[in-house]
Amino acid sequence: MSDTGLILMKKVEIIVSGEDLHLVEQMLVRAKVSGFTLVPNVSGRGHHGLHEGHLLFNDMHALDMLFAVVPECLVPPILAGLGTLFERHSGVVFVSDVWVTRKHYFETYAKSPR
Amino acid sequence: MSDTGLILMKKVEIIVSGEDLHLVEQMLVRAKVSGFTLVPNVSGRGHHGLHEGHLLFNDMHALDMLFAVVPECLVPPILAGLGTLFERHSGVVFVSDVWVTRKHYFETYAKSPR
Amino acid sequence: MSDTGLILMKKVEIIVSGEDLHLVEQMLVRAKVSGFTLVPNVSGRGHHGLHEGHLLFNDMHALDMLFAVVPECLVPPILAGLGTLFERHSGVVFVSDVWVTRKHYFETYAKSPR
Repeated sequence: MSDTGLILMKKVEIIVSGEDLHLVEQMLVRAKVSGFTLVPNVSGRGHHGLHEGHLLFNDMHALDMLFAVVPECLVPPILAGLGTLFERHSGVVFVSDVWVTRKHYFETYAKSPR
Repeated sequence: MSDTGLILMKKVEIIVSGEDLHLVEQMLVRAKVSGFTLVPNVSGRGHHGLHEGHLLFNDMHALDMLFAVVPECLVPPILAGLGTLFERHSGVVFVSDVWVTRKHYFETYAKSPR
Repeated sequence: MSDTGLILMKKVEIIVSGEDLHLVEQMLVRAKVSGFTLVPNVSGRGHHGLHEGHLLFNDMHALDMLFAVVPECLVPPILAGLGTLFERHSGVVFVSDVWVTRKHYFETYAKSPR
């Protein structure tokens, strides 16, 4: 999609308990991620009773979802940081391709003091 | 992205009326989906008056959005289940590629009693 | 994924201040986008104090996130409209690939009076 001036980046979506959100923030800062978007109060549901014949999701957890759009080079340090975090805290991470318009991306996500 | 240990999965995003959410849950269980994330209280907006010169979206519906990250083999049964559901209930479904880290994915989405 | 009847579309995600949401709506209508989904009250966080040794995100903004799923041909006019909008208003846009099932997509997103 080069004719539209779009640039390939990676979207990293992270879902954690609200109480662990500050740990993810600290990790993102250490990984040099300059910003993220938080979607608060999502619910994570799993069904762990399926083998016993239950047909409805029987667990529901209050979680926060956040995502950062980053250059691909930042994905490995983010995943490394999350790997350490997820040794003791529950969470999931999804990585996907997104295209951004350069100017506005950097204005919002990498704006620095002038 | 094999150097980061990421594995390709499919993200299935479903948007339905809140009153139909339990039907989607039941369908996901039947399709052997082991968990999902719910983003409650999104709004769906459509503009149906454009031909009459209206320039603002004039419909707004309270909806729930949920998504599951699943192996590709689960996409056809989910779509089949939704196809049946959408014969009588409004909704949309989007499928996209996401990459996950295996360990944490299965810890959260396919955790079983030990 | 042609065996599942899925069709490639583009998902356009836009994050703006709530006060500018109506401007995005007007632009989407002008670009002939027939509907969108709104995820209200997300937070945008950036850290602008990193060079001074701060380790936590120190800015937090109340934003709205919306996304539309559109044919690829609508991406350039949407980006053009956002380009104009973003000259005076903060925001970001991400474009990604999603697959939809035709019937239900058009029922919800392009329903017209009959």
